Amino acid sequence: MKTVSHLINNKNTPLSTDSRTAPIYNPATGQISKQVELACKATVEEAIAAAEEAYPAWRNTPPQKRAAIMFKFKELLQQNADRIAEAVGEEHGKISHDAMGELQRGIECVEYACYAPELLKGEHTKNVGPSIDCWSEFQALGVVTGITPFNFPAMVPLWMYPMAIVCGNTFVLKPSERNPTSALMVAELLHEAGLPEGVLNVVNGDKEAVDVLLQDTRVKAVSFVGSTPIAEYIYTTANTNGKRCQALGGAKNHAIIMPDADMDNAVNQLLGAAFGSSGERCMALSVAVAVGDQAADALIEKMSKAMQALKVGAYTNSDNDFGPVITREHQQKVVGLIDSAEQDGAKVVVDGRKPSVTGYEDGFFVGATLIDNVTTEMVSYQQEIFGPVLQVVRVDSMKEAMQMINDHEYGNGTCIFTRDGEAARYFSDNIQVGMVGINVPLPVPVAYHSFGGWKRSLFGDLHAYGPDSVRFFTKRKTITQRWPSSGVRENADFSFPA
Amino acid sequence: MKTVSHLINNKNTPLSTDSRTAPIYNPATGQISKQVELACKATVEEAIAAAEEAYPAWRNTPPQKRAAIMFKFKELLQQNADRIAEAVGEEHGKISHDAMGELQRGIECVEYACYAPELLKGEHTKNVGPSIDCWSEFQALGVVTGITPFNFPAMVPLWMYPMAIVCGNTFVLKPSERNPTSALMVAELLHEAGLPEGVLNVVNGDKEAVDVLLQDTRVKAVSFVGSTPIAEYIYTTANTNGKRCQALGGAKNHAIIMPDADMDNAVNQLLGAAFGSSGERCMALSVAVAVGDQAADALIEKMSKAMQALKVGAYTNSDNDFGPVITREHQQKVVGLIDSAEQDGAKVVVDGRKPSVTGYEDGFFVGATLIDNVTTEMVSYQQEIFGPVLQVVRVDSMKEAMQMINDHEYGNGTCIFTRDGEAARYFSDNIQVGMVGINVPLPVPVAYHSFGGWKRSLFGDLHAYGPDSVRFFTKRKTITQRWPSSGVRENADFSFPA
Amino acid sequence: MKTVSHLINNKNTPLSTDSRTAPIYNPATGQISKQVELACKATVEEAIAAAEEAYPAWRNTPPQKRAAIMFKFKELLQQNADRIAEAVGEEHGKISHDAMGELQRGIECVEYACYAPELLKGEHTKNVGPSIDCWSEFQALGVVTGITPFNFPAMVPLWMYPMAIVCGNTFVLKPSERNPTSALMVAELLHEAGLPEGVLNVVNGDKEAVDVLLQDTRVKAVSFVGSTPIAEYIYTTANTNGKRCQALGGAKNHAIIMPDADMDNAVNQLLGAAFGSSGERCMALSVAVAVGDQAADALIEKMSKAMQALKVGAYTNSDNDFGPVITREHQQKVVGLIDSAEQDGAKVVVDGRKPSVTGYEDGFFVGATLIDNVTTEMVSYQQEIFGPVLQVVRVDSMKEAMQMINDHEYGNGTCIFTRDGEAARYFSDNIQVGMVGINVPLPVPVAYHSFGGWKRSLFGDLHAYGPDSVRFFTKRKTITQRWPSSGVRENADFSFPA
Amino acid sequence: MKTVSHLINNKNTPLSTDSRTAPIYNPATGQISKQVELACKATVEEAIAAAEEAYPAWRNTPPQKRAAIMFKFKELLQQNADRIAEAVGEEHGKISHDAMGELQRGIECVEYACYAPELLKGEHTKNVGPSIDCWSEFQALGVVTGITPFNFPAMVPLWMYPMAIVCGNTFVLKPSERNPTSALMVAELLHEAGLPEGVLNVVNGDKEAVDVLLQDTRVKAVSFVGSTPIAEYIYTTANTNGKRCQALGGAKNHAIIMPDADMDNAVNQLLGAAFGSSGERCMALSVAVAVGDQAADALIEKMSKAMQALKVGAYTNSDNDFGPVITREHQQKVVGLIDSAEQDGAKVVVDGRKPSVTGYEDGFFVGATLIDNVTTEMVSYQQEIFGPVLQVVRVDSMKEAMQMINDHEYGNGTCIFTRDGEAARYFSDNIQVGMVGINVPLPVPVAYHSFGGWKRSLFGDLHAYGPDSVRFFTKRKTITQRWPSSGVRENADFSFPA
Repeated sequence: MKTVSHLINNKNTPLSTDSRTAPIYNPATGQISKQVELACKATVEEAIAAAEEAYPAWRNTPPQKRAAIMFKFKELLQQNADRIAEAVGEEHGKISHDAMGELQRGIECVEYACYAPELLKGEHTKNVGPSIDCWSEFQALGVVTGITPFNFPAMVPLWMYPMAIVCGNTFVLKPSERNPTSALMVAELLHEAGLPEGVLNVVNGDKEAVDVLLQDTRVKAVSFVGSTPIAEYIYTTANTNGKRCQALGGAKNHAIIMPDADMDNAVNQLLGAAFGSSGERCMALSVAVAVGDQAADALIEKMSKAMQALKVGAYTNSDNDFGPVITREHQQKVVGLIDSAEQDGAKVVVDGRKPSVTGYEDGFFVGATLIDNVTTEMVSYQQEIFGPVLQVVRVDSMKEAMQMINDHEYGNGTCIFTRDGEAARYFSDNIQVGMVGINVPLPVPVAYHSFGGWKRSLFGDLHAYGPDSVRFFTKRKTITQRWPSSGVRENADFSFPA
Repeated sequence: MKTVSHLINNKNTPLSTDSRTAPIYNPATGQISKQVELACKATVEEAIAAAEEAYPAWRNTPPQKRAAIMFKFKELLQQNADRIAEAVGEEHGKISHDAMGELQRGIECVEYACYAPELLKGEHTKNVGPSIDCWSEFQALGVVTGITPFNFPAMVPLWMYPMAIVCGNTFVLKPSERNPTSALMVAELLHEAGLPEGVLNVVNGDKEAVDVLLQDTRVKAVSFVGSTPIAEYIYTTANTNGKRCQALGGAKNHAIIMPDADMDNAVNQLLGAAFGSSGERCMALSVAVAVGDQAADALIEKMSKAMQALKVGAYTNSDNDFGPVITREHQQKVVGLIDSAEQDGAKVVVDGRKPSVTGYEDGFFVGATLIDNVTTEMVSYQQEIFGPVLQVVRVDSMKEAMQMINDHEYGNGTCIFTRDGEAARYFSDNIQVGMVGINVPLPVPVAYHSFGGWKRSLFGDLHAYGPDSVRFFTKRKTITQRWPSSGVRENADFSFPA
Repeated sequence: MKTVSHLINNKNTPLSTDSRTAPIYNPATGQISKQVELACKATVEEAIAAAEEAYPAWRNTPPQKRAAIMFKFKELLQQNADRIAEAVGEEHGKISHDAMGELQRGIECVEYACYAPELLKGEHTKNVGPSIDCWSEFQALGVVTGITPFNFPAMVPLWMYPMAIVCGNTFVLKPSERNPTSALMVAELLHEAGLPEGVLNVVNGDKEAVDVLLQDTRVKAVSFVGSTPIAEYIYTTANTNGKRCQALGGAKNHAIIMPDADMDNAVNQLLGAAFGSSGERCMALSVAVAVGDQAADALIEKMSKAMQALKVGAYTNSDNDFGPVITREHQQKVVGLIDSAEQDGAKVVVDGRKPSVTGYEDGFFVGATLIDNVTTEMVSYQQEIFGPVLQVVRVDSMKEAMQMINDHEYGNGTCIFTRDGEAARYFSDNIQVGMVGINVPLPVPVAYHSFGGWKRSLFGDLHAYGPDSVRFFTKRKTITQRWPSSGVRENADFSFPA
Repeated sequence: MKTVSHLINNKNTPLSTDSRTAPIYNPATGQISKQVELACKATVEEAIAAAEEAYPAWRNTPPQKRAAIMFKFKELLQQNADRIAEAVGEEHGKISHDAMGELQRGIECVEYACYAPELLKGEHTKNVGPSIDCWSEFQALGVVTGITPFNFPAMVPLWMYPMAIVCGNTFVLKPSERNPTSALMVAELLHEAGLPEGVLNVVNGDKEAVDVLLQDTRVKAVSFVGSTPIAEYIYTTANTNGKRCQALGGAKNHAIIMPDADMDNAVNQLLGAAFGSSGERCMALSVAVAVGDQAADALIEKMSKAMQALKVGAYTNSDNDFGPVITREHQQKVVGLIDSAEQDGAKVVVDGRKPSVTGYEDGFFVGATLIDNVTTEMVSYQQEIFGPVLQVVRVDSMKEAMQMINDHEYGNGTCIFTRDGEAARYFSDNIQVGMVGINVPLPVPVAYHSFGGWKRSLFGDLHAYGPDSVRFFTKRKTITQRWPSSGVRENADFSFPA
């Protein structure tokens, strides 16, 4: 069985016999397909040292040269997309069209990194005082790190290191130990694109590796995406250790269905937003809040019907709409939350608890599930399910719907379906959520805007990727300059030494 | 004796008989002149509640209207400048020209807040996808707070709340309890300018008040300026409690004197930078690093001579160059550090330990002090003295000088004196300090750039005032919008209800 | 009778006996109230010379100091608002609330000029190549000029010279000779605010003066607002003479009334947009395009009713809604165009051709007029009427309405009334007009955005006021800098001359 | 003999028997190598029609999709660089390293076009008034055109159309008829990258074609690079015909050699700047102004010596430093100007009038020429020579040198050689030239800044490529939006039609 190791100084580290390892599953079959070495302290420190050593030359490389490597990287990612998507499918379970979509989003972040010469421009003022000038530079931080989740194994690393690196930093990536292969593939392509060794290093590992990254004083910043409890731990620990940090956590994304919404369009949009990638997305739309029973009834009817066509299955068949969830444990957790909703009085309208996937009986599958009459007291409402489950809450007014959203601890994404300009504007202005859709159920900002939730969905001042990430991965230096007369200009100094 | 209380909802709170109080000194006389009430938990919570109540209406006030109040505020500050400077002088000790200078810097931050309509513009993209638009808004955080130091009692609050407020937040200010009067005066002027009650509240207090601000969940952000140990405590505590924070701490600012520097100019510049405001500035230039003995000797000679003309005395006489330090304890600490330098082998060239200030024999004065042959092992080099003391370190090369600066734990400000373009450029690029001067010994960025040190001089991602402060006091919301066809445009719907 | 002269070097020029003059009317009474001296070539050249002389010192004044004068200017404008509005009313005829509104818009442009330190920041790049830096500066042009129309005698000059001046240029203003007094008043206030003499000069005159400004090589740029034929002449002549130019011309602004519009709101909005300032605004809403007869009938009915309450009269009574037009000739032209519409088959629903204004029988009044069944072939549709006349065109579809707007030679402003997000978005994207309102009939951009029409409503690349005006009044300089090693940094040069 | 025709709708137009043609020379051999068809009115109109037809779909293509084609275009340009450089060499004469350098600069403009999603962001303001929002969009102009010169046949077209096209415009390019092949090659690669047909069209021609482009009302903007008299004609004509225009003309670029300059470095830099590409660059450094005879003598001595190593010859040998000039007529003009300098009293120190290039006796060669003691009265000083000729003027002071530069009619580029920060700063601030080098003799701004001269070197408000080109190729639309309440939000309207 293959063992996946680390990438330090552009070399795959040799396997050591005394390392701890963890299994990597194929979620569609439920079988272990590989194992991954879990980095010990020494290995992580070796990666940090490699990044530290590469830093001085890299920070002095002109931004345009750094960006040139990103241009080439983008080419290579496109050329190798199928191969990467295959790796994602095998270890994560998502269907190829979904893996390709994920990768495309990541590539768009590489494109944004290509803009570095523009993005790194500082502000210059002539004459802040008489013959005194002042300007700002956005300088690199040094060695920085990213810790990324299982659910977008190819994309989330690309949210982070292209921008970090193009800003002049060097990087240590710790991807999810459940599906590290695609991240390693992608990192190798960046080296193929011309990245000097040591600028990007990848270590696999678990909490032991993470804690080294959080404690080592050479690491200047941490970007994290994962669940809220871990995000909070990462953020607090990193800050206590003098590091800059942004830590993105969980979500519970609601869509309000207004009485005037185009219901066919809404249902069509919600299908993908709720069940795509088995709901294992921090932007998954998991709660539909219908305003008025008329809207709710129509939604339930049309949605149940539309869900009949959904296919759950293995990533190898691209006709499937979505695949398994990540582990046996997670499958059981999702099913348990559906059970709890039912026990709490909600109505399971479409039941995905026992999906039949011929030939993949041991896979970690959950079928698309629709639950009506959910209320805010239920555990299934309060927690993030992270599975293919859409819950419907019925309310009497838009005001009530908005209050519910604002009261939830998470504030990642949300959406309203309406045709009315005023309702949309009121909603987007007043909702306490960082990413808002108007008739767009999955309002993931494009790569040239920034991604970030509010409340307990994000810890930190600055959002991920896009303009905010430039500021996150640089520190401001402000220079004030005055040249006192030296006589050279006034020509008093002709006998100046040649 | 007058007791200074709080300003909540634009009302001075009544004095309560059971409150704790602290004395306010006149540092020039060494006498207690007033006392200040120290807020208990209930008082701080009352201020927070006032801010919380004022928030919804204030965030909905158009930015231009909010800015209009800042325009008026600027007028009033200019009209009341003498009165404010007098209050600063009485409680802090700084001479009127210095107090006026401080206030002017604060006013310039108010001017920058006037630009809010420009500064708050978000980014808009038509067609992120077909007929899909996306834009960002920078929305207010809610109730935010500022905790400010004794050394710039009028200015530092103005670094914070004008921008916070003009961005739509409401504010609780806790100024230094040693000299709160000017901050209260200034806050009253903002209300006179038209600020609705509750938008800005001022509470006086000590650690008890600070801890309430750090723990209350209604407070969303903390901006702090003070010493590094407190800054670190504030930063860690605020973050742990889910708040955004920027905390500015101590400094040890070096000037490199190159052999080609215009020495008369350098000495002239250093005089004010080292001794102005008794050196109680986080940007005070306290170490001169002379490259080569020739430069060092010339510096010592010219500086000693120039220092003879310096006058230390009470704020009431504007002929004085600088005044007392803030407390008896601090005076003793400064003298103690001079003693230690001498004991460690440095040479006290000009000795200010026993200044004679006729008529103010009990004042907390320290005279301007020049110390030669200081080395990096000395405690007086390692610690921030925060007094009118300039230490000279001799080195053999610019490289050695820069290494020394980069090795120091602080990285607030620094400067190089040279006429050489290449030396200046190399210095500004490679020095690990946030604010850099080229022949400018006090490179405090103008109000429309941002202020911030590196290393242990600032905890947080974003600098104070200027462009960074806009981002600090707002959170990004990103909206993605698509309007599905409703038939209205295509004119299918003529019989639409009137 | 008072004769108004010029303001050069902050002095009112003495009246010369051989100058040409023109009468100034009070449009409400129809009587001549003053006369104005018309500048000959020598006078205009004197003004240019004054500006030329003031330029070197002014361009070197730090932007923040220049902005400080604008802050003070704003204060003085607010303090003198009544007096200025009175002057506007007397010479233009508009009612005080309208004159105050005009002035307020002008003041907001002064506020924007206060932001100059932010707006003038250039872009700075470290390391465009190894140790090579590059930055842009936006430098002043030199002497620039503005030529402004009668209809906003106080506001339009403030669109131009505050920004021009704060960018470091010096200025010659030629206001309309029909109502020059308010512009002179305002110019005097700017000097009271601290402007050095010669930086702003005002000459009154007609084509003779304009042609001097267009031909003198010392004048670097021309900003013009007026009618399209003159705008085109100004633009072509200025360009031929090597000057930068922006020239804003006429308009024909349409509102589309969709079947789903809130008709009461639309009528309420249109009242002010069509008849305010007697329709003498380049943003006046003069054509309502009703989609479907149902909408048209409702519009006509509600509008006719609402118009009954409108009061036309002298500026001295602030109960009046609007005043006279500017001259007898213009009154006759407006009435003639109403006649022509009637003759061409349109229906004059509310007829303002013979208004009765007791006590002001000789004033140049036209009453509010509503015309139905207007078609695109009519002269009254094709020409800009610039009077209190609202014409209604009936169409069958939004598409037809948009085609009509896109086919018109002007493209200044336009508006749609609808509640439908998709219709609004399609309209704003595809309409060939520079300023678009969604349920906002007078979509004049706020001062911190920019003002400009498309097609034959504006000649030039850059719009007026706001961000574009910064670029218009500056030229870009790009500096690329490299410092070859001189040995100073490497310390080889210790014996450098002291 | 091959005849080069046009590219319309991504098709090479068939050769027509009655077309006018012009010869294309190989300047190294002096022989005609091909001929080019000169477009008649009908052909140009066909190209415009193709662009007009492609416009609606192209403007609606999301910016990111448009940019994706530019990413691919960049790849293809790099892959085909040798082939393009070969074509440039054959028709222009420049050596391959120089042609590759030219192309690289062009590719960097394509990179900048890739940033379009960032560059096209408009400004968005929430709450310009209560619940009223305002934003700007930068919309495409429509069909635009570029007219480009012989001296950078591959690069200058890439200054223009990548940005024009990525902003949503469609384009007609008219390259120089002397060397059209590389432009056609490059245009074909853009189609290979995925550009829809009609978006870019290339017509070859002379004044007849140009005049059609200048007069056709469908063409909305003209970008031109060439000589000043033609630039002025283009600018005036385009403006008169209602088009936006930027027209870049001639230059006379001076370097000041200060007494403290590192002379070896200066000479080394000047060699390439003066003689590279035979001096046929609008940024060629053609005048060295030496301050003081000591500097002048050193310059002459070192430069004469360095020039001995320069090799002039055919593009096919990459050891050559530069090649022939473009035509026999131009060769004679350059020689004539050297003659005139000599006759006017200047001293020809190194004489390139009769170069010997074995095997290429009929080529249009001029050798590197150095002339001392040039004065401002000489014709050779006043005119642009556009050949490999460096003239030295001797002055007594920096002030005199700057005055000379400021008095020249051109203001494209300039440079100072000095080690002194103050001299450099004074120079860059006060020199009346658009592109300034500090120890950089060819201060062509990088692609992410903008290119443009002052005075008679550029007609128009906005510079070429970089940030200014985004504004040049778009028009601002400002939208103000208010949504009156429709009852939908307040929930009054539950029975809304489904």
